[in-house]
Amino acid sequence: MNFKEELAGQAQKINRALDKYLPKADCYPPLIHEAMRYSVFVGGKRLRPALVLAGARAVGGGEEAAMPAACALELLHTYSLVHDDLPAMDNDDLRRGKPTSHKVYGEAVAILVGDALLTLSFALLADLPKSGLVPPERAVQVIAEVAGAAGTMGLIGGQVVDTLSSAAAIDAPTLDYIHTRKTGALYKAAVRAGAILSGASADQLASLTTYAENLGLAFQIIDDILDIQGDEQKLGKPVGSDAKNQKATYPALYGLEAARENARLAADRALAALASFGEEADFLRELVRFVISRDY
Amino acid sequence: MNFKEELAGQAQKINRALDKYLPKADCYPPLIHEAMRYSVFVGGKRLRPALVLAGARAVGGGEEAAMPAACALELLHTYSLVHDDLPAMDNDDLRRGKPTSHKVYGEAVAILVGDALLTLSFALLADLPKSGLVPPERAVQVIAEVAGAAGTMGLIGGQVVDTLSSAAAIDAPTLDYIHTRKTGALYKAAVRAGAILSGASADQLASLTTYAENLGLAFQIIDDILDIQGDEQKLGKPVGSDAKNQKATYPALYGLEAARENARLAADRALAALASFGEEADFLRELVRFVISRDY
Repeated sequence: MNFKEELAGQAQKINRALDKYLPKADCYPPLIHEAMRYSVFVGGKRLRPALVLAGARAVGGGEEAAMPAACALELLHTYSLVHDDLPAMDNDDLRRGKPTSHKVYGEAVAILVGDALLTLSFALLADLPKSGLVPPERAVQVIAEVAGAAGTMGLIGGQVVDTLSSAAAIDAPTLDYIHTRKTGALYKAAVRAGAILSGASADQLASLTTYAENLGLAFQIIDDILDIQGDEQKLGKPVGSDAKNQKATYPALYGLEAARENARLAADRALAALASFGEEADFLRELVRFVISRDY
Repeated sequence: MNFKEELAGQAQKINRALDKYLPKADCYPPLIHEAMRYSVFVGGKRLRPALVLAGARAVGGGEEAAMPAACALELLHTYSLVHDDLPAMDNDDLRRGKPTSHKVYGEAVAILVGDALLTLSFALLADLPKSGLVPPERAVQVIAEVAGAAGTMGLIGGQVVDTLSSAAAIDAPTLDYIHTRKTGALYKAAVRAGAILSGASADQLASLTTYAENLGLAFQIIDDILDIQGDEQKLGKPVGSDAKNQKATYPALYGLEAARENARLAADRALAALASFGEEADFLRELVRFVISRDY
């Protein structure tokens, strides 16, 4: 089995768990639950939940205990997309080739869908000990980790700076700030959450943190490059939107070749951070190669 | 000291704690932190955090351990107000006599302010064990409680039904659904959170739940009545807005006198639920009398 198939298999498993944890579409009040499911199941590679599960396995933990946290990270990611797409923010009509939440359900419901997905992700994390596999002190540590990554020093902070900066004014440190928060923070929280739940040592946690930071950077640079050179069919979204929206990007700031080289260097640092891990971290290694060579 | 002074003293103490837990206004990125502080400190009676502290005291617990949870409930309440006021939702320009968040900072920032307050409230709850006064298993239980109350079976569910129903179509069960979720859910979670943190027994928790449900109902009915008969100066908001916005209310559905009688009956049930508690529950008792006789 090649890695793309393995990743797709993981995504299917994660989708089944998401289906279990999300309220049924006919649960009262039905519109909000239908709309939450629409945005969660519209697509996605499920990289963040896969990172939670892989972080758990890398330190010898099982997937079962970590699955609610994996789903929580995907719900959190989906909330951020639904709110980012709103007319007052990026005003995007399409996401993964499908109409965005506010185009289908209206703005009021889309705002509430985001709020509900964010809230549900903390509900899932708080229920972690119910499996009997996670001690409450580890669950609390993971909730603190995720809330920090999602807050104004993480995801929201990145979105604030991204929304308020005009592209011309974005220099390299600001671009780094935006991407380490908007992408990096959740990648890092995902790997760390899985590892913490499985009782990682401080050394293991430090290595996995370096891994995730560099994986996130590589992912974001490639994302920027695909927006210039990618195939709309494979990506499921129009290319050239960064240029159209005057978004600052790595290629715009450094040039295409230097951006690609930076992605390769970040990928190398991510792999080097796993030096002390055995084959239990092979998924994390394959993921680096996938991220750097992906065309979607 | 009369109860209004006691309540004001509690609010001051809670405001000092909120000031401590909120990032400083100049913390990067400053705009979001300034905007969060604007909405939190624009005013408010701080009833929900006072209920957390009172719930803790009622079962013999101290205020110090419960204060982060008290602040979390107020941040959660503020998030719901900021998002409810948005143009796509209730489109309110004023809140407590001051311009609403989106009027001051624009819609994009107001959406992010709500997201950030919601996220910070879970961060505060996750940090509860750091004081050394709260075992992690109680913190996790409180997070589950709050996430449930804030989610689509609670606060958000109430807002969905409120936003999507036209007033003419709202019958008594629907009005009850909206109010038990929009007001009742957080009142209940507040009292229960304080009590759980202080190690309440199942019996104590059941009594306090009945108390909070009826207090929330009495509060909401009086709120509806004040929107008809209240003094704009004291309320800090225009009266008559429910009628103007064709909102379903208790007086509209039952008539003013029957609504007032329902509030009195709910208040009696709230007091009766405290029968087995001693003077440590006096604040909760006084709060019922305050809620039923308030003019602001």
